[in-house]
Amino acid sequence: MGLQTYTVGVDFGGTNIKVGCVTPHGWVVRSLVLPTRAHATPQTFLDGIEGAMAQLCAASKIRRSQIRGVGVGVPGLVDGRRGVIYRLVNVPGGWEGVALRRLLERRLRCPCAIENDVNTVALGEWRFGAGRGTRHSVYVTLGTGVGGGLVVDGTLVRGITGAAGEIGHTGVQLNGPRCACGRRGCVEAFVGTAGIVRRARQAIRAGRVPAHAALRGRPDSGRSGSQLARLAVLHGGRLTPKLVSEAARAGDRAAMDIWQEVGYYLGAALANVVNLLSPERIVIGGGVAGAWPWFGRRLRATVRELAFAVPASACQIVRARLGDEAGIIGGAILVEEGG
Amino acid sequence: MGLQTYTVGVDFGGTNIKVGCVTPHGWVVRSLVLPTRAHATPQTFLDGIEGAMAQLCAASKIRRSQIRGVGVGVPGLVDGRRGVIYRLVNVPGGWEGVALRRLLERRLRCPCAIENDVNTVALGEWRFGAGRGTRHSVYVTLGTGVGGGLVVDGTLVRGITGAAGEIGHTGVQLNGPRCACGRRGCVEAFVGTAGIVRRARQAIRAGRVPAHAALRGRPDSGRSGSQLARLAVLHGGRLTPKLVSEAARAGDRAAMDIWQEVGYYLGAALANVVNLLSPERIVIGGGVAGAWPWFGRRLRATVRELAFAVPASACQIVRARLGDEAGIIGGAILVEEGG
Repeated sequence: MGLQTYTVGVDFGGTNIKVGCVTPHGWVVRSLVLPTRAHATPQTFLDGIEGAMAQLCAASKIRRSQIRGVGVGVPGLVDGRRGVIYRLVNVPGGWEGVALRRLLERRLRCPCAIENDVNTVALGEWRFGAGRGTRHSVYVTLGTGVGGGLVVDGTLVRGITGAAGEIGHTGVQLNGPRCACGRRGCVEAFVGTAGIVRRARQAIRAGRVPAHAALRGRPDSGRSGSQLARLAVLHGGRLTPKLVSEAARAGDRAAMDIWQEVGYYLGAALANVVNLLSPERIVIGGGVAGAWPWFGRRLRATVRELAFAVPASACQIVRARLGDEAGIIGGAILVEEGG
Repeated sequence: MGLQTYTVGVDFGGTNIKVGCVTPHGWVVRSLVLPTRAHATPQTFLDGIEGAMAQLCAASKIRRSQIRGVGVGVPGLVDGRRGVIYRLVNVPGGWEGVALRRLLERRLRCPCAIENDVNTVALGEWRFGAGRGTRHSVYVTLGTGVGGGLVVDGTLVRGITGAAGEIGHTGVQLNGPRCACGRRGCVEAFVGTAGIVRRARQAIRAGRVPAHAALRGRPDSGRSGSQLARLAVLHGGRLTPKLVSEAARAGDRAAMDIWQEVGYYLGAALANVVNLLSPERIVIGGGVAGAWPWFGRRLRATVRELAFAVPASACQIVRARLGDEAGIIGGAILVEEGG
């Protein structure tokens, strides 16, 4: 019997680069974190990955020959098939047109693969997380942006450009609110962080809860938006989806309504995906998915309402499972996927 | 060298059943038409196909041993993988749950396959028509209904239920006009026949062209909606997309505007498809596609405007090529696809 083999998964984020050793069954045996700032150019990135691999191998008593390959999820537009970066988001350092896969393979002397980070997590959740056991799985990440990744017939859908899966920028409302992408009515404009915060501000204004009353909290807590206003004041006016969740938990009617809207608009976008692809499972991840108790039921009901009965009833909508390790695990799968 | 082989493609429509002998290169060597009315039950359908095959073979001097298989595109919801019909649209006769593939194979003693009719045409256009040479192709049919079929990585997307591809019932406008499916704001509600006719009636009302003035035609022809009104009167008040095309050709401003709207709303739906799948080509077929000169430019411009630049610029939008034979040719491909 040969030695256990591992794949290295890399989750290249705007703030941190996570590098981990993953078993063929999707377990992260060891991982470490590098600051993106120190590794933001192709050259320093390669240095960082090489060093991290040496560290991981030494700490886990793994020989380099046991590493079957390295897969990297990158934050931006990528041609995974050719292994080339179109452009990165939130990472400076001259990445346009860089053939990162070839650079990695030359430096690390093993098979490497790169892919968009959301697609990478989509693969991870499909193979070892909440999408496990399905042939057709859709992953959606909720956060500042709303991203997606599609697995059809057990293969990641890249499309001709590698840019497939942009669920967040499918439109649900012509002439709807302006999205960060510049267009109007994308589902991200409704359920991305900016959209949620915008609605929370509207709710506070509509409730006209004065700051001092808001701070007292309890007496007014039945009033719609009062908890939202109180939390906003406590946090120096800085609202986040997390605070909107807290307000909902505290029984704030306006905050609950905001999550119902999130469920509705996301449901409208996913009903379109269900009618187009008839997936077996839709997996909801990302930071804002933590508010699932406040929007999950409405999300499911909306998909049932707006999609056709046959594909809707065959599609489960569930929360992601892999948490913070999803990017590392997905990265490790990229190598098998073969780019 | 063996004898030339053929595949039989069957286009099972609400009015006619077209049966044709197709070469491996997608040429229909001979075809015939059966009235659906006489073959609307599983038993009479099998009789009809068996008889048609015998006729085609005799007329073309083809031996039954040269027929490699039979593929049928059926008008309804189908599980192509299992070869079972969920339900047919516009065909009575107890088709629910019928395992048509097995019935065909028992009767005809050769490999058979069935698939939804739009998916079948999508395969035909992808393989031998306007989608030829691509790996990712989307087919849209415009008519009474708006249907679609997706080819991703050279494979028809069926989804877990077989019901994938329902582009016509993706929503572009929450709380938009009511669609035939019962929901609101589906793209079909805007660009299906009913939506086009509804807009034409509105235009005539808005133009307030009296019937006698409309009939005189020429003097008023500069006035928006006057040609529409004239054609409506000439056809006993029965408007069709074809008449709206004629009015546009005659220079009617209102009719031209209607086609601009068709291009816009269809473009909005297809921009979503482009952002989701990044296809290489979108093929527009069906009867209403005949109005392409009036809406094609606006359709392309809208996709470029509403989809991301990278996938939009990589996606060509073209007219279908196979015409009336598309269903037969697509049916013949089903057999190779293997259901």
